[in-house]
Amino acid sequence: MSEILFDRIALIGIGLIGSSIARDIKKLSLAKDVVISTRSAETLKRAEELGLGTAYTLSAAEAVKDADLVIVSVPVGASEAVARDIAPHLKPGAIVTDVGSTKASVIAQMAPHMPDGVHFIPGHPLAGTEKSGPDAGFTGLFKGRWCIFTPLPGTDRAALERLSNFWKALGSMIDEMDPQHHDKVLAIVSHLPHIIAYNIVGTADDLETVTESEVIKYSASGFRDFTRLAASDPTMWRDVCLHNKDAILEMLARFSEDLAYLQRAIRWGEGDKLFELFSRTRTIRRSIVQAGQDVDSPDFGRHALDK
Amino acid sequence: MSEILFDRIALIGIGLIGSSIARDIKKLSLAKDVVISTRSAETLKRAEELGLGTAYTLSAAEAVKDADLVIVSVPVGASEAVARDIAPHLKPGAIVTDVGSTKASVIAQMAPHMPDGVHFIPGHPLAGTEKSGPDAGFTGLFKGRWCIFTPLPGTDRAALERLSNFWKALGSMIDEMDPQHHDKVLAIVSHLPHIIAYNIVGTADDLETVTESEVIKYSASGFRDFTRLAASDPTMWRDVCLHNKDAILEMLARFSEDLAYLQRAIRWGEGDKLFELFSRTRTIRRSIVQAGQDVDSPDFGRHALDK
Repeated sequence: MSEILFDRIALIGIGLIGSSIARDIKKLSLAKDVVISTRSAETLKRAEELGLGTAYTLSAAEAVKDADLVIVSVPVGASEAVARDIAPHLKPGAIVTDVGSTKASVIAQMAPHMPDGVHFIPGHPLAGTEKSGPDAGFTGLFKGRWCIFTPLPGTDRAALERLSNFWKALGSMIDEMDPQHHDKVLAIVSHLPHIIAYNIVGTADDLETVTESEVIKYSASGFRDFTRLAASDPTMWRDVCLHNKDAILEMLARFSEDLAYLQRAIRWGEGDKLFELFSRTRTIRRSIVQAGQDVDSPDFGRHALDK
Repeated sequence: MSEILFDRIALIGIGLIGSSIARDIKKLSLAKDVVISTRSAETLKRAEELGLGTAYTLSAAEAVKDADLVIVSVPVGASEAVARDIAPHLKPGAIVTDVGSTKASVIAQMAPHMPDGVHFIPGHPLAGTEKSGPDAGFTGLFKGRWCIFTPLPGTDRAALERLSNFWKALGSMIDEMDPQHHDKVLAIVSHLPHIIAYNIVGTADDLETVTESEVIKYSASGFRDFTRLAASDPTMWRDVCLHNKDAILEMLARFSEDLAYLQRAIRWGEGDKLFELFSRTRTIRRSIVQAGQDVDSPDFGRHALDK
């Protein structure tokens, strides 16, 4: 069914995303060689044990030699260091892409280092789970998910199409946006939800009047829904916050403003205002389910898995 | 296996909770007669079509006649009206309980109306989904979930035991608390999460720079987790906000304070503070999974249901 799309692919970073890409490449035979590189000797060893690639190295510079496609899957704050490392060793005509959750910052970090003749195409597959590390990856992670490219002006369309075909082979749907818009969209659909989830779990953790064991015991009444996002990779999310600061602060300001309005309605017993808000949010859930972006079963379908 | 625990049970209110109780009673043959009452003729008709009880009436007063157990499952703001309606018609020795998410307010609304010789035992099964109405109920909703009683001083222990046995037959685990503590615990594990979820979905709905269709399209990157809670019954949640005001406002104040701290850390690029918070919240998720209060599969296990 599938065909070799690139002779040699280099994967820089082999966490949840990198290792899921590796598994798909292997399963679908999309490349002859897959060189895996990560800074941690322990993680590299694990990647090798899992048989995720065909070669393994601690040096990103070494990994990209002769690679036709380089996929950088590291916390966004590490993008510049990687770009600087690999730049002198990139093969002319190679495609370099990334999977970072913020795009303007990644472009600012990487683009200046990219040599002429190399196609740098920033990308962001909207996929992942709350787990991290090479063991957390799985085949099919990107199936039915969006992959957003934020190409720079003058990007070679043929290179973009080759890269699109790669992601399509993994089952993704392709979108294109400018980096600033991407960062605003992601700030509301992903970054704010994660920050809010981390925050509420932190608030619960700090209470004196309600014990932590009570929070855990009774979490099924709502709280547990937040703990999934709040269990995501701390390094990744620290970097997202630092590298999409402006858009995140804008969304946080709006969120807090709306919350103050709601808080005031509760204090003054304004039932109509509460009812109005609580009613219109239902529509969005319905649209998300209709768009195939979430399951329709109650409780995310986990009731069936419950005891 | 099971046995008749009450000759006649009256269910006042037949939404998600009431209808799930009705389905369990029927399946487990826990009562000879089940009289169902609700204020809406349409809902009552639907309950009858679903065969949820043995008798149906629009009058709560009528429904409780000769009932040994009365379960009030209405939005908490309607508790006093129900108590006033049913009080003169309650059978001596009957047990009256409720399923409301706030307890101090329900007690204040109902207890003064309860005649001598009737056992009023406030209760709260911590179970539900984001769906509502008689069609949303299902057997087994209470299985493995907690049911918290907040008995009044001087409660008859034998009556409490009979009621406990009823909930145990439905698969619930029993806890006891004083009403004020219950309201604080629920404010953090349930009310705050719902309010925050409603709020963030409202914020997203209001944006001008990011379209609603983009929010829906890319919601799998985090946002969708919040939309489930934000799709819950608006009437129920309006009433919860109005009837657990003090505890909710306290939790909201703490949440906002913590969020301001986090926001400041983002603005000033304090990565260490962010990393510290983002790391400690992982532990709580792990404890919740270990306590059997959530599934361990990534994405709440819904990935398997995804396309």
